Amino acid sequence: MRGGEKSKVKKLFEIDKYKEFPRWYTEVLMKCDIVDARYPLKGMYVWKPYGYKALRNTLEILRKLLEEKGHEEVYFPMLIPESIFSKEKDFLEGFSGETFIVTGTPSKKLNEILYVRPTSETVIYYMWSIWIKGRKDLPIKIYQCVNVFRYETKATHPLLRVREIAAFLEAHTAHASKEECEKQIKEALEVYKEFFNELLLPYFIVLTPPWDTFSGAEYNYDFITAMPDGKALELGSVINLGQKFAKAFNIRFMDSDGKMKYVWQTCYGVSERVLGAVISIHGDNKGLIFPPKIAPIQVVIVPVARPEDHEIFNYCRKVARHLRQKGVRTHVDEDLEHTPGWKYYYWDMKGVPTRIEIGPRELKTKSVTIARRDVREKITVPLNQAVEKLREVWSKIEFNLREKALEHLKKMTKIVKEDINKAVGFKGLIVVPWCGKENCADEIESTIGKGVLGEIVESPLTLPSKGKCICGSIVRKFALCGVTY
Amino acid sequence: MRGGEKSKVKKLFEIDKYKEFPRWYTEVLMKCDIVDARYPLKGMYVWKPYGYKALRNTLEILRKLLEEKGHEEVYFPMLIPESIFSKEKDFLEGFSGETFIVTGTPSKKLNEILYVRPTSETVIYYMWSIWIKGRKDLPIKIYQCVNVFRYETKATHPLLRVREIAAFLEAHTAHASKEECEKQIKEALEVYKEFFNELLLPYFIVLTPPWDTFSGAEYNYDFITAMPDGKALELGSVINLGQKFAKAFNIRFMDSDGKMKYVWQTCYGVSERVLGAVISIHGDNKGLIFPPKIAPIQVVIVPVARPEDHEIFNYCRKVARHLRQKGVRTHVDEDLEHTPGWKYYYWDMKGVPTRIEIGPRELKTKSVTIARRDVREKITVPLNQAVEKLREVWSKIEFNLREKALEHLKKMTKIVKEDINKAVGFKGLIVVPWCGKENCADEIESTIGKGVLGEIVESPLTLPSKGKCICGSIVRKFALCGVTY
Repeated sequence: MRGGEKSKVKKLFEIDKYKEFPRWYTEVLMKCDIVDARYPLKGMYVWKPYGYKALRNTLEILRKLLEEKGHEEVYFPMLIPESIFSKEKDFLEGFSGETFIVTGTPSKKLNEILYVRPTSETVIYYMWSIWIKGRKDLPIKIYQCVNVFRYETKATHPLLRVREIAAFLEAHTAHASKEECEKQIKEALEVYKEFFNELLLPYFIVLTPPWDTFSGAEYNYDFITAMPDGKALELGSVINLGQKFAKAFNIRFMDSDGKMKYVWQTCYGVSERVLGAVISIHGDNKGLIFPPKIAPIQVVIVPVARPEDHEIFNYCRKVARHLRQKGVRTHVDEDLEHTPGWKYYYWDMKGVPTRIEIGPRELKTKSVTIARRDVREKITVPLNQAVEKLREVWSKIEFNLREKALEHLKKMTKIVKEDINKAVGFKGLIVVPWCGKENCADEIESTIGKGVLGEIVESPLTLPSKGKCICGSIVRKFALCGVTY
Repeated sequence: MRGGEKSKVKKLFEIDKYKEFPRWYTEVLMKCDIVDARYPLKGMYVWKPYGYKALRNTLEILRKLLEEKGHEEVYFPMLIPESIFSKEKDFLEGFSGETFIVTGTPSKKLNEILYVRPTSETVIYYMWSIWIKGRKDLPIKIYQCVNVFRYETKATHPLLRVREIAAFLEAHTAHASKEECEKQIKEALEVYKEFFNELLLPYFIVLTPPWDTFSGAEYNYDFITAMPDGKALELGSVINLGQKFAKAFNIRFMDSDGKMKYVWQTCYGVSERVLGAVISIHGDNKGLIFPPKIAPIQVVIVPVARPEDHEIFNYCRKVARHLRQKGVRTHVDEDLEHTPGWKYYYWDMKGVPTRIEIGPRELKTKSVTIARRDVREKITVPLNQAVEKLREVWSKIEFNLREKALEHLKKMTKIVKEDINKAVGFKGLIVVPWCGKENCADEIESTIGKGVLGEIVESPLTLPSKGKCICGSIVRKFALCGVTY
């Protein structure tokens, strides 16, 4: 390892994540080959192979969880005629301003304008009004993973706020009764909790205030976390649609009592934004750190050898074959131009959670040296124990990343018991006692300059048993406040 | 099993595939839950869970083949600014008439119209002009599986000719030399051959005549098969783009001799149309027959029991668990309303390749009875041999479907040696000697009323060593002619 090169590489990625988060985020996405932001349309990004693999691995976790609970994958058309898009008044009002439209081809105008889905409620529920006839057609539980579009007028950020959501994983369900519908909301919350737990992300769950509820919904829950710059990020939404869409689309079934009844509906969705959170929250000043479960490469093997040490290179390939056979996503860096030291920095930057170093000593003893990405720690183990040890190391990494993420959230959250003025100027999330009234929310918002995101129903941090709302009343409820992306 | 019900079900799906193909196709898609054609936009269809699983399984085979050859998955934006879409003149001319455009939102007009991708050459190659600098950046081999749109003015057919292609699996490559580019074309042909072989589909490979070549290409190969109505179906295309796009987009690299050179490019793609071919070619008068590799359900277990025979139902569930553990996609039909006979017909219609029947005898002897979908044949084997036997049975089904498909193609193809007039009125594909000249192609087309699809470079049927072109010259080349979807 040549020292000069080492320090040069070190400088290549060395950004203080907390002090310069916007620059850190932009650079990490670009240098680690997640997305390319140079496509000349605002809010639309090119997913590179490395980033796309991470995205697929991430969403695969959720797909499995949904399928275990009986959701089936479907695909509904992207274009929606105005007659269908406009059926539910609140939805139309909430979305029409930010929805792209197709008007025809360069040479031909269509008779009716077509909306490019910003989300798929209308197209799906139109079909359900045809599909659903009787009780035996219920429940329906489906999901799809599709591109959706929103004409965002705010500043766009790759993965976090975009005009083309490349991967919107939206689930939709219909039920025969209000109770089943509420049960489904609980199931969806459990699924998302498990999903975010797998991603090692801590979150608040809030019940969105009525004035911020999804257009066309009865109520919805949001999963919210804090980003390194202190802003709030909505990770996912679980929405109880009640019967609003059922009535707008006339989705009815013949119940066992012979009466025609409207169905009860829910929907819930996440997007590539989740990966944006994983990247931002787990990364450090040296670059990305991928949780092992979603890492495109789980192990990079670096030969500590001169180009002519063929035996070491052969042994590296043998180790790689062994690991791949056991299902470990493995890459051997056989590049001859760079030193091992350079490679360590490079793969650290790319967030590979574990590195295997193989030099003359490992070759001789048929062993491998495993180095962790998240902390400085190396162990040397016999090859036949490598997979087992890797899994142990990954568990430790997961534990550590989860702890660190929770620490981060603690630092980024200020919990107020009474005097809200103490929170003024705090740059992260703020938890305040809140009686639930809209005018108190207004007053809270104008005092701290942050929006009331909802009433906290689940918190990763211990909250006081009670507190004083801005109106003076003693309450046991707390609001989460923050500036959103 | 009640006889009356049995015959009622039989009538539910009993259509002569060859005599009434359009009706057979429409009904099979609908009744077997592949797609729903009732969405009110022409050429846009709703994929139901069963159909979507088959589609995913189908494309998964190709993904794996591509990844084995070093292709990596990416995602490029769907919307393309006019300035990028219009760079390559031939491409623009070929596609602009059938491309949808986005003009803004209902309340705001964009400054520049955006094209909705009909295919992704332009957006990908625009980025490549930024990415590619030196020889070490080459080759690039990527693929994406995305929705694309074409404003088809012809009649649309689900899966076969649509306005929204729900799953366009397009690969794109760039190379440093013409030779590497041609090598890539060969690799792509091999990948597709293996893919269609896995789907048990016989195909011709033709070199498309210049006047029908992909807009912006040097030349392209098409894989073509015959549908039950005798029409030709293009299964996939492998395209040598040469340097046309490289020049239009200025995609250059510094070669080892220090000179800036344009890259050489290929692209190749397939879509859900492939599944349309699988469904049409392998199905029979009773409904679908899925090749085991892509069947959403590979084994359906039917309890031959009364509702109170709990032991049999329990044993069925045990068998299912056993099969699932071994990776077999299994469904137990526990429905109590229908007789086993009804279920046999139902799952036959849905194309499940193997059924397991379990009654008192199987329970007692801890065995299972395996029935084939494609032919009337049943075997009873001990449970611990079930998986092994299933795999044997699937091999036989695959062999049989492949043979039958080839037989079908033979019947649907007329090979002419000299007198083309003998082929007039034949409703399938026609193979005719062809010298390669455009005016001969014109004459052939006007004589037989079918288009010349290209010069055959690979045929699943034995062709004569030579023949006489319509101009009288003796040739060793043959054209494939047909009416396309």
